[in-house]
Amino acid sequence: MDEKVRGYERVIMGIDPGTNVMGYGVLGVNGKKTEVIVLGVIQLSKFESHYKRLHRIFERVSGLAAQYLPDEVALEAPFFGKNVQSMLKLGRAQGVAMAAVLSRDIPVAEYAPRTIKMAVTGNGQASKEQVANMLKHLLHMTDDQMPKLLDATDALAVALTHFYETGKPEVAKGPKSWAEFLAKNPERLAPRRK
Amino acid sequence: MDEKVRGYERVIMGIDPGTNVMGYGVLGVNGKKTEVIVLGVIQLSKFESHYKRLHRIFERVSGLAAQYLPDEVALEAPFFGKNVQSMLKLGRAQGVAMAAVLSRDIPVAEYAPRTIKMAVTGNGQASKEQVANMLKHLLHMTDDQMPKLLDATDALAVALTHFYETGKPEVAKGPKSWAEFLAKNPERLAPRRK
Repeated sequence: MDEKVRGYERVIMGIDPGTNVMGYGVLGVNGKKTEVIVLGVIQLSKFESHYKRLHRIFERVSGLAAQYLPDEVALEAPFFGKNVQSMLKLGRAQGVAMAAVLSRDIPVAEYAPRTIKMAVTGNGQASKEQVANMLKHLLHMTDDQMPKLLDATDALAVALTHFYETGKPEVAKGPKSWAEFLAKNPERLAPRRK
Repeated sequence: MDEKVRGYERVIMGIDPGTNVMGYGVLGVNGKKTEVIVLGVIQLSKFESHYKRLHRIFERVSGLAAQYLPDEVALEAPFFGKNVQSMLKLGRAQGVAMAAVLSRDIPVAEYAPRTIKMAVTGNGQASKEQVANMLKHLLHMTDDQMPKLLDATDALAVALTHFYETGKPEVAKGPKSWAEFLAKNPERLAPRRK
């Protein structure tokens, strides 16, 4: 186990899967406090063969999972792309990354880009730079910690989104209907008047 | 190692990846003789969660690779689908199956449906039933060996296609130009007359 991983209640790994560059970011959580454990990118463009790229993704994501022992993994998952050809390629890259995680019985969650931008900056249309700047502020990152490639901050953003989304107490979301509320809280149903 | 795998010069596994049913077929090769080692399907529709399906694909394909020790794996890979959403899902299923294979350093090849139909039946527009019937004939399969689900024969068809495509002697394809021919056969270049 990596030394840095000790002492966190929860470790969340975020992945921004791409076919040229794959970003990753690992977040350590203690209560409401979040800390960056590591972030970086997996360079894939140096491999000409599509299969070598997929193999590389599997090896690196497996390695990251073994090193940082994430409790959960969150992926940035665009559901609509330019064309079917690019979506098939992206799906393969995602599938390989997921296989590396699921084969270790680590649960996977995915978030749409808009959801991530909304969760981190409050604006679903935010730019990658705005997301990076907000992350720097929220996670108290120094200039040295900021990566050159925004794929890394994008990955960190999906990890933070997962923390926010799963940290929401159920009661804060609220039941969707009175029927649901009563089903969950039967003791709150006043006895019938006789 | 599975008993059946002994005694083959070459073992080729074919996979027809789908998100509801994944077909597989393993072919044993000795010289020009091909034999069916096993064929079947991985049922995925019983798993509601997309991630459970992907996990299941990884486990089963890993298991098949460990049991039948294929030298090569060939996938049926449609490059254009109905919509981006379904292509992303299919890409993930393919990616997970590829990860299970590539992580064992087994080379992967892929063939388009048209290429497979053409290689097996001589007709790029052949139906699944026509492909199955031709396979039965080519591989001397008994009625008992024929599977109920055509995903299994589709997988066997891609394995056989891979055998045909890789078995073609280079010379039969012929060089594309005289320059290529001479580059490959420098001794055939007559010495300049003085």
